[in-house]
Amino acid sequence: MQQLTYAVTGVASGIGAELARILTAQGHRVIGFDIQHTVENIDRFIPLDLNDADSIQQAAQAISEPLDGLCNNAGLPPRDGLEETILQVNFLGTRALTYAVLPLLRPDASIINMASRAGHGWRDGVEQVKRLGRLKRRDQLAQFIVDEKLDATRCYNLTKEAVILWTLAEAETIVNRGFRINSLSPGGIATGILGDFQRAFGAKMARNVARAGRPGRPDEIAKIAAFLLSPASNWIKGTDIAIDGGMGAFNQADLMDLHGLRLPEKEMAE
Amino acid sequence: MQQLTYAVTGVASGIGAELARILTAQGHRVIGFDIQHTVENIDRFIPLDLNDADSIQQAAQAISEPLDGLCNNAGLPPRDGLEETILQVNFLGTRALTYAVLPLLRPDASIINMASRAGHGWRDGVEQVKRLGRLKRRDQLAQFIVDEKLDATRCYNLTKEAVILWTLAEAETIVNRGFRINSLSPGGIATGILGDFQRAFGAKMARNVARAGRPGRPDEIAKIAAFLLSPASNWIKGTDIAIDGGMGAFNQADLMDLHGLRLPEKEMAE
Repeated sequence: MQQLTYAVTGVASGIGAELARILTAQGHRVIGFDIQHTVENIDRFIPLDLNDADSIQQAAQAISEPLDGLCNNAGLPPRDGLEETILQVNFLGTRALTYAVLPLLRPDASIINMASRAGHGWRDGVEQVKRLGRLKRRDQLAQFIVDEKLDATRCYNLTKEAVILWTLAEAETIVNRGFRINSLSPGGIATGILGDFQRAFGAKMARNVARAGRPGRPDEIAKIAAFLLSPASNWIKGTDIAIDGGMGAFNQADLMDLHGLRLPEKEMAE
Repeated sequence: MQQLTYAVTGVASGIGAELARILTAQGHRVIGFDIQHTVENIDRFIPLDLNDADSIQQAAQAISEPLDGLCNNAGLPPRDGLEETILQVNFLGTRALTYAVLPLLRPDASIINMASRAGHGWRDGVEQVKRLGRLKRRDQLAQFIVDEKLDATRCYNLTKEAVILWTLAEAETIVNRGFRINSLSPGGIATGILGDFQRAFGAKMARNVARAGRPGRPDEIAKIAAFLLSPASNWIKGTDIAIDGGMGAFNQADLMDLHGLRLPEKEMAE
């Protein structure tokens, strides 16, 4: 197989660390970015603080080789006190890094944005996401949070809706440049930040995990990310893929009352 | 790699034939089903007419080995005069075959339903799909078509909405049995039935293909289907994956007027 070169942000832990491990095992080169230093399963480490515009530009400039893909995996969980930083890191900084990296991409490169099941309300969040996307400067975020009455959980969900909508918005310009862009929406994954999600989403999340049978594992998301970076998935463009063990389907079936479409259990051959 | 055994319907042509070729090349066993006989890239052929309830039961009974997955790929395109058959083959027959095959599935088996970009209006089609799903007998279809005022194109779109919604509806029961079910939604694929879609969808489809740059190829869908059958995608459950070269995203970005989320072209580094 051809050796390709991928950039992965948030590579020091969780899904990013698993993705680096899988890509390296497949024989690819991995350039890893994180605020926290690591040398695990990567060919090169570049420090990156998505909360800092200068750090973003410096990180992009430090990449000295063409890339076959970029996985925007770094992000902050919902946590009180981090409201501004969540908006900046999860969406505005991620978007800025992507634009800074575009000139380094090889033809047919694949860009992946890590969204979340927490962004599944994106159809209802369009107008708020547009207002967030229009902000020009980092110092407008504090006032935006006051004006929009956002707590940390809403900030998190909003950034994940924004990632899904921005992926849709940018799909055609990215395709016209010869690349592709998609998002992934994991749900209920057992990483170091699972506790933050349990505090933010409480009983709803516990119920989802119970129905799925267990939380997902980071490698179960990273395997999909590796496939979506690879040329094998080349016709998947501008879409979001849910990876949640069925949590989204279970909830949609309830909401739309779809149970009548099922075969009655007694008729289902055993 | 472990040799697995997969059942593929509609295996004689198009996406099904490509999927059989890919799975065989990966070292797996393929049991192929079709109304038209074939021996290409399969280990065993079983005749199947999804328009015939007896044929469905006989085909399921003819499977003499446990299965690691089922790809419900067979389907009819929108074509005048085939209205009843489209409803029967694309949804009701496909659903019946799946239930008949369930007892043969090994733990962790993956079921894939071939939906379509033509089913993307499933959120608005819920009530009509429920009425279709409640029909008990094949001979009720003619009256259903009259009552619902369906032409061949609407019949086709309705069955694809039904496949997506039925996948959501059945996700939890299937997970509880130790399997998983998902759907794929290809758009504008160059197979032998592309002409039917061009007649049915006209200028809208031509515009979508032009924006994507070209129609998709059957192997570009089959590669994703092979991944979704494989254990590597094990945490993807109850979801629909669009494989359309960006067509869905381009249309959603227009409809929701998302272009303001993009970086202005002049600011995008070249």
